[in-house]
Amino acid sequence: MKGLVVMAFCFFLLLVASPSALASRKSSKYPKPCKQIVLYYHDILFGRTRNILSNSTSYRITNATNLGNYQFGSLIIFDDPITKDENLRSPPVAAAQGMYVYDMRTDYSTFFAFSLIFNSTEHKGTINIMGSDPLGAPTRDLSVVGGTGDFFMARGIVTFTTEAIESIEYFRLKMDIKLYECY
Amino acid sequence: MKGLVVMAFCFFLLLVASPSALASRKSSKYPKPCKQIVLYYHDILFGRTRNILSNSTSYRITNATNLGNYQFGSLIIFDDPITKDENLRSPPVAAAQGMYVYDMRTDYSTFFAFSLIFNSTEHKGTINIMGSDPLGAPTRDLSVVGGTGDFFMARGIVTFTTEAIESIEYFRLKMDIKLYECY
Amino acid sequence: MKGLVVMAFCFFLLLVASPSALASRKSSKYPKPCKQIVLYYHDILFGRTRNILSNSTSYRITNATNLGNYQFGSLIIFDDPITKDENLRSPPVAAAQGMYVYDMRTDYSTFFAFSLIFNSTEHKGTINIMGSDPLGAPTRDLSVVGGTGDFFMARGIVTFTTEAIESIEYFRLKMDIKLYECY
Repeated sequence: MKGLVVMAFCFFLLLVASPSALASRKSSKYPKPCKQIVLYYHDILFGRTRNILSNSTSYRITNATNLGNYQFGSLIIFDDPITKDENLRSPPVAAAQGMYVYDMRTDYSTFFAFSLIFNSTEHKGTINIMGSDPLGAPTRDLSVVGGTGDFFMARGIVTFTTEAIESIEYFRLKMDIKLYECY
Repeated sequence: MKGLVVMAFCFFLLLVASPSALASRKSSKYPKPCKQIVLYYHDILFGRTRNILSNSTSYRITNATNLGNYQFGSLIIFDDPITKDENLRSPPVAAAQGMYVYDMRTDYSTFFAFSLIFNSTEHKGTINIMGSDPLGAPTRDLSVVGGTGDFFMARGIVTFTTEAIESIEYFRLKMDIKLYECY
Repeated sequence: MKGLVVMAFCFFLLLVASPSALASRKSSKYPKPCKQIVLYYHDILFGRTRNILSNSTSYRITNATNLGNYQFGSLIIFDDPITKDENLRSPPVAAAQGMYVYDMRTDYSTFFAFSLIFNSTEHKGTINIMGSDPLGAPTRDLSVVGGTGDFFMARGIVTFTTEAIESIEYFRLKMDIKLYECY
């Protein structure tokens, strides 16, 4: 009988302490998304190396300051194609239009404010997004703060993952859009 | 009996295909606003033609880049009067303060982030708005992402309609503010 | 009996007209926050007087325009330490990263858009904030428009109070963060 109690206690400890148990407890506190869309964001910054305007989808409108060594103060305006797969040349299903600014003194990090604009047979409307994007983190969560059209009054989370940095003038993000409030 | 079925079928087709039926189906998916306010936004941009500072309510703080031909990268800060009717000279009932930036490579479009600030006997508080404004579209929906004071915790949609572009230095927007979450 | 009615009526008038009654009615219309955190925001602007970069936590990336006399158009990017008490030298519990811009023609007022980024044992995640900050008002309410991590899907109000302006290059804000939507 005593052995059984000890075994039960050990099992309990295992359950509490194991990372997977922790993880499942953590994730279960979030509800299931009412809508989920995975998209890819392609940014081709003008003027970094080759200066080819015709290809560019974004432009730095203010120079980096000398505060830190991580582009602090560099403000980029973008009109970036959004695709359903990872291929930059796939037909875009949306556009991401807005701004990001480098705003960290001790590492690369940006603050984003922009709209995802859909105008396809599948989706019409916009998703408005704001939040912090610390480039070094494997995944970063930003806020869906509103939506219009098919995404009327949406709220949720967009998880950014850096998929590729090919030379310093191109990067691709995976955007995992999870809406938790839908109408 | 067969005639009746055919008639019913025709009526069904009519119902499904007619634009008005479509429209009513579309709109009925949205709830009724808990609050609705129609206001007019007047923007007098400094420096476009006449350069009269005393009149101006907004200022371009970064020049357009050479990416596309639609003012891409031009960032405007504004403190614009808001009136209840279309007359610029009517007493303002609120101010719109914040920014918009031209962010489209292939047409005129702007991203807005700003506060509507009310300080009248009728309303005290702010409505915070963010979203995309493609100038060519007859109407554009932006997100009300929050509010304070009389608009505590508000969420909703603002529909922009361009009412006038008188010379290149003045434009007026109709703002149809529909709140769907009120406290 | 008649006297009683008159007394009751007077009492009713008193109740309706007295400022305290009004105030209590006003405040009672707001629900209780599901989470409340008080923090302090420290901003050391580079380049105002002493130009000491190593200390600075923010940088003005565009100059003020000549529209009005209140820094209109001056855009500041910041990476500001957040502490639990009023002491700038206390260990930071979060960082505030984003932007504010002076956007009023007739007085000092700014529009903020930024993330509060927590990465401590106590809190992990972000709170995204947007709104107007008229510096002369004793308190100012901005909107919490979203959150991630421990603040998943948060909404609420942040009340700013200016605590100190020591020389023109340093200011401290008390941030009273009240979340009314928590998951």
